Amino acid sequence: MSSAPRWVEAINKALGHPDNNGKMIYQIATVDTNGQPRVRSQVHRGFMEPDGHPELPVLVTSTDARTPKVGQLHSHQRTELAWWMEGSQDQFRISGITHIFPSPAQGAPGNGPTPIADEAIALKLLQNSGFDWEAKRKETFDGMKPGMRASWAIPYPPGTFLPSYDEQKKWPKEVPLEQDAKTDEDKKNIDFAFRNFALMLFEPVQVDWVALGVHPNQRIKFTRDEGVWIEQQVVP
Amino acid sequence: MSSAPRWVEAINKALGHPDNNGKMIYQIATVDTNGQPRVRSQVHRGFMEPDGHPELPVLVTSTDARTPKVGQLHSHQRTELAWWMEGSQDQFRISGITHIFPSPAQGAPGNGPTPIADEAIALKLLQNSGFDWEAKRKETFDGMKPGMRASWAIPYPPGTFLPSYDEQKKWPKEVPLEQDAKTDEDKKNIDFAFRNFALMLFEPVQVDWVALGVHPNQRIKFTRDEGVWIEQQVVP
Repeated sequence: MSSAPRWVEAINKALGHPDNNGKMIYQIATVDTNGQPRVRSQVHRGFMEPDGHPELPVLVTSTDARTPKVGQLHSHQRTELAWWMEGSQDQFRISGITHIFPSPAQGAPGNGPTPIADEAIALKLLQNSGFDWEAKRKETFDGMKPGMRASWAIPYPPGTFLPSYDEQKKWPKEVPLEQDAKTDEDKKNIDFAFRNFALMLFEPVQVDWVALGVHPNQRIKFTRDEGVWIEQQVVP
Repeated sequence: MSSAPRWVEAINKALGHPDNNGKMIYQIATVDTNGQPRVRSQVHRGFMEPDGHPELPVLVTSTDARTPKVGQLHSHQRTELAWWMEGSQDQFRISGITHIFPSPAQGAPGNGPTPIADEAIALKLLQNSGFDWEAKRKETFDGMKPGMRASWAIPYPPGTFLPSYDEQKKWPKEVPLEQDAKTDEDKKNIDFAFRNFALMLFEPVQVDWVALGVHPNQRIKFTRDEGVWIEQQVVP
């Protein structure tokens, strides 16, 4: 029987530390189309895995399909994230493959799902077993708070020129769940936000965990080799 | 008269927020020699600037000259960092050029200073005015706590195989300042640590500041154009 890798346990244990409360933010690095490094903060939305494969966890996060990182990930899926948990002084550096699943609606931004490389065995397994990406996208979108959901309903792509701050006053402050929609405006905003909402899945292939909260400090490298995680203690 | 760019003021204001106390950690992304993105947490050690050029601030951090990022930065100096200040909900994404100044001692790790690109006008100015990098390296090293300084005195390069945790018991737990050295062992450790200690200087050319703690959210892009910072409000 395979089981979840020990680094997932370590992340969950660190997240359970009272001083790490809310430490659900990591920084994901990509390479842009000019070969330059880019990095930004993302919110962790939990783990998922192909059925019967706890040894192949995937991190779930999300983005706006109109952001530049989506184009970057179409041409270069290799990524790395750094998850610093200040409360317990743990750093998890995770290298892997990132997959974007945007809205499948005709003409929606994001240019369709990113290709899935052969080395992304968890994503391949999900794909080949007919995993319902769209249902997962909906579940993740519905799991947001209404104020957060409103960020996908901004009429202009993130990072583009904003003529005036007054413009912002016209933007929705909250986007409710479908079942809570009261007006046509609400329905329009839900549709538009969900069209811009993209699922972002990060499949780890190497994890470098350094624990600076214990003395002497500990550092462990976990490397996935055909679905088996090899553990090695290394110099902190 | 030129003055410090407004984003430095914004960073200092955010750092002054009581809930951002100690938020001196950012994540710096590099590209490795295979063209893959890498990212890790670094401690901010302050700003510096060429004499008479407050408009050209450089971020000071440090590293171990034996780490892989030093090789990465020799072949690719373009970097980006993400500085997330949770307390005030500010993110500063800073793109720029990173310069490594390792120990100039014969045979010291790090393979000498990284090249300074023409676009790195602050680093070029420092270089051409005969800036004393070695004095800055010493000052930064001396500014560390003895326990932190000990990390440069580990006999093996960070990230390399550690045969056993017992090995760690032999490593120094503290490395004092030169003037506080009591034993030959202390002196040996100071020399060895300082030999591995490298100054890491990050020269920003673009800053993307998003303030999620204010409503409506604000986002400003600062772009340096021949030493002048252009400000543009953009969609958050």
